[in-house]
Amino acid sequence: MSWKPLLLTIGDPAGVGPELSIRGALWAHGQGIPVAIIGSAPLLQRVARQLSLPTLPTISIADESPAAVSLSAAGLSLGAASAVLPPIIDLPGLDANGVVPGSVSAATGRASLEYVEYAIRATLRGLAAGIVTGPIHKAAWHAAGIPFPGHTELLAERCHAPRHCMMLAAESIRCALVTVHVGLADVSRLLDIDGIYDTIRLAAAGVQQFIGRPPQITVCGLNPHAGEGGLFGYGEEERCIQPAIKRAREEGLSVRGPVPPDTAFVPALRSRTDVYICMYHDQGLIPLKALAFDDAVNITLGLPIVRTSVDHGTALDLAWKGLASDRSFRAAIDLAARLSSPHF
Amino acid sequence: MSWKPLLLTIGDPAGVGPELSIRGALWAHGQGIPVAIIGSAPLLQRVARQLSLPTLPTISIADESPAAVSLSAAGLSLGAASAVLPPIIDLPGLDANGVVPGSVSAATGRASLEYVEYAIRATLRGLAAGIVTGPIHKAAWHAAGIPFPGHTELLAERCHAPRHCMMLAAESIRCALVTVHVGLADVSRLLDIDGIYDTIRLAAAGVQQFIGRPPQITVCGLNPHAGEGGLFGYGEEERCIQPAIKRAREEGLSVRGPVPPDTAFVPALRSRTDVYICMYHDQGLIPLKALAFDDAVNITLGLPIVRTSVDHGTALDLAWKGLASDRSFRAAIDLAARLSSPHF
Repeated sequence: MSWKPLLLTIGDPAGVGPELSIRGALWAHGQGIPVAIIGSAPLLQRVARQLSLPTLPTISIADESPAAVSLSAAGLSLGAASAVLPPIIDLPGLDANGVVPGSVSAATGRASLEYVEYAIRATLRGLAAGIVTGPIHKAAWHAAGIPFPGHTELLAERCHAPRHCMMLAAESIRCALVTVHVGLADVSRLLDIDGIYDTIRLAAAGVQQFIGRPPQITVCGLNPHAGEGGLFGYGEEERCIQPAIKRAREEGLSVRGPVPPDTAFVPALRSRTDVYICMYHDQGLIPLKALAFDDAVNITLGLPIVRTSVDHGTALDLAWKGLASDRSFRAAIDLAARLSSPHF
Repeated sequence: MSWKPLLLTIGDPAGVGPELSIRGALWAHGQGIPVAIIGSAPLLQRVARQLSLPTLPTISIADESPAAVSLSAAGLSLGAASAVLPPIIDLPGLDANGVVPGSVSAATGRASLEYVEYAIRATLRGLAAGIVTGPIHKAAWHAAGIPFPGHTELLAERCHAPRHCMMLAAESIRCALVTVHVGLADVSRLLDIDGIYDTIRLAAAGVQQFIGRPPQITVCGLNPHAGEGGLFGYGEEERCIQPAIKRAREEGLSVRGPVPPDTAFVPALRSRTDVYICMYHDQGLIPLKALAFDDAVNITLGLPIVRTSVDHGTALDLAWKGLASDRSFRAAIDLAARLSSPHF
């Protein structure tokens, strides 16, 4: 295990992220995984009081360079003295008393962005082992004028990683997505051979890290019945998906497909698949959440840093109530720790 | 139970339909459900010999009107003397010796259409209790120049039922589809308020027949996160789905939605949903087959006759090998019998 901490960003302050990050940090501490929470300390203290959670130590930072020093010191002290509870790295800028649980705004959106931006900078500088992100609210980002639809796109931009992909992973099923946060009507025109091939390649490399052998890859078609020989759709299977599979096979990867999407996830095929390549968000996330809700972790493949995330949203109706499950947050911390450990 | 037989069409002769219809008919016979198989008797005899299945009695017909008489007689004799094995109504026109298992063609496509056309005519004339269709092969229909993408569209046309819908039903999950056999890129422009409302209405009425009370209905969004307040997609949720839900609620139906498609099928929501309204084929069929493969039945709602079907395709790699599961075929017969019984 690296002595450097994993950074847990709290996500949108008005959602379930703050309570999950506190509970996740305490769980990680119990597992011997060094972590630090990135967020607003006054807000986290409000949440902790409300839910009778322990108060965590706070490291206040005024600006960027002391932050780096503080964080480095926090990491060192975590490594040296694990009896100390995980710290909160307190970023200024949010009016903590103005936040209403369950009510997102441009202000909460902006704050949640700043936590992630800080975590990315610190991790790229080598001060942290990786990032575990709490759920942001996409409409709050949009309201704040943030030009990224989600974490994945922000990370890709800040890490200069044009070839990246989002994968959702549980014990029983893993899905890597070719397109993510786009309208269903736009999926077809966004598919191309390179994008599908890159997703296959990144998923193959990423999953091999998890399972220790080359994975069995199943690629879904786009249309009903995978187009049924060109009857449905615009030949996306023949024009884009098959050539990408061919290229991946030529490089020695074990790839099946394109398979009809509706039969791709039946038990017999699941047992022979280490990772699915899915053409759009819900093609992968519907079966994943139906089969492994609460257990799945969101991983960004193709970045120079480790980044995992919960697989759920801000769950505004549950915010600050202590009712949200922390299983996905724990699984995200656990996986990030394994991926960032030099002994993995 | 009606004394009239259910008609089992064998589907594409080169697929798994023939063996499943023989096994399904024998199972129905054991259950006291009168059935007759519609297909090519010489072909079914080839299949029976190859798989050591019993030889069923054959009723040969030369043309339409004797067929009706024969069928009626068969139904009567089934009702009166259930020791007689279920008959095959032999339709001419297929070169049974020329059929290669697993190899569909325009000829097998044309034959499979004729079986269904016959069954529709007989049932509309009141000679049969309903239809259970074996799997056809859509590319074979296309090769034969048949202008219907599948059974559902053919049935709607022949029964003059412009408002109809395809529903897949298992014990644990039911999905009614707003669009069915169309390319993914076409789904958005095919959605409108009337189509979604009709699907809700037909599903509500159909499912109430099954469960004996007004169903809890969950309507999925189209886009990731149900559009996340208009961020993804073209406002289909606001423009089409919400108004259709509003209209259905005004008529007293219990409707939730539009819900984000990926969380619609998690266990907590499944337990509170009697039927899902899905905007496209794989939105419903991916979770249905992942959760209830082999158990699901395809039902056409909105027709003047009872029609159920297996939820799988021709499985050409398994054809005539005795390896295909007949669970879905049995479930389809069982449900058709229940729906067509006057005592249901």
